[in-house]
Amino acid sequence: MPGLFITFEGGDGSGKSTQSALLTEWLESLGRTVVLSREPGGTDLGLELREIVLHRRGHIAPRAEALIYAADRAHNIATRVRPALERGDIVVQDRYLDSSVAYQGAGRVLGGAEVRELSLWATEGLLPDLTILLDLHEGQDRLADRTRYDRLEAAGDDFHARVREAYLELAAAEPQRFLVLDARDSIENIAARIRSRVQPLLG
Amino acid sequence: MPGLFITFEGGDGSGKSTQSALLTEWLESLGRTVVLSREPGGTDLGLELREIVLHRRGHIAPRAEALIYAADRAHNIATRVRPALERGDIVVQDRYLDSSVAYQGAGRVLGGAEVRELSLWATEGLLPDLTILLDLHEGQDRLADRTRYDRLEAAGDDFHARVREAYLELAAAEPQRFLVLDARDSIENIAARIRSRVQPLLG
Repeated sequence: MPGLFITFEGGDGSGKSTQSALLTEWLESLGRTVVLSREPGGTDLGLELREIVLHRRGHIAPRAEALIYAADRAHNIATRVRPALERGDIVVQDRYLDSSVAYQGAGRVLGGAEVRELSLWATEGLLPDLTILLDLHEGQDRLADRTRYDRLEAAGDDFHARVREAYLELAAAEPQRFLVLDARDSIENIAARIRSRVQPLLG
Repeated sequence: MPGLFITFEGGDGSGKSTQSALLTEWLESLGRTVVLSREPGGTDLGLELREIVLHRRGHIAPRAEALIYAADRAHNIATRVRPALERGDIVVQDRYLDSSVAYQGAGRVLGGAEVRELSLWATEGLLPDLTILLDLHEGQDRLADRTRYDRLEAAGDDFHARVREAYLELAAAEPQRFLVLDARDSIENIAARIRSRVQPLLG
């Protein structure tokens, strides 16, 4: 496809929105058309599905939840992302299949490999041209102030540490697709490194 | 699992509800506990998902639709069917994975094999102990009065004929799981044949 599909990954608060906005601004200044996208909830259908997953009362079976997220993804890719890529636009998306793999894998209910396979079925195998992982060493920052945290928040730290580990493993497995940046670096430094990685992809 | 999982398949109007009710009545008269189930929409979550698939305006991408049905199935199996089977109950269910395979396969957008695989992932590989296919030779009945039908209705007949073909292929591939009955036979004859097939499964 003539377009370019760039995804941002990383924990909440790692700066994905800020960097997406800066990248979009730069790409538009070069005359490119950018479609901003997100998952979950990047389409109307996705918003309805997200509402069900996030806000309904009662338990949702883990596989049902994974399938609902995959449905959101399937619809977003088929109706927004692929048409944009076919037009030659650049799609900049907040979270994609690596989020599912890292978060589900870290949650230890479903295996990362099967979640990845499900996503690839949902999207007919669409992988990003570039995935920017904003790596946030959250656990370490928090440990400095450990006295304020209770057991649940500590468990939360463990979870975030496992998500980070999973992200770094994904990046190590596909170094040609991933750009890993330290989220604690300055906004301008990060933006500059993203631009120099994206530049040669613009052709 | 100590319980028994029996599914009914066949086109609309083939008598699935009638035969489910008669089978349930008979099983209860033998002192067995029966859980009646259906897909899609067998759970609260499933009803919400079904509402989205059936009643929202606008196009839904085919894979998104298949994934939403699979999510409904995953939740129904995990939260209602498996617990009942583990208690030793008999689950009598209106439609299951064979419906997805036959209808999706007949629609020619997604392949039957991949839809089956998706369902098996959703349900952790749960197959029924017995599947009763009420085979309705709908096309033939309608063809007698062909002059009344326009092109769209004829296409509808083609579709139903393909669904029927797909069902019969599934039954032929797993003769030990399927009982195929002519839906035009009398209600009492069909019920009697179902009872004699179920009897030895009761142990």
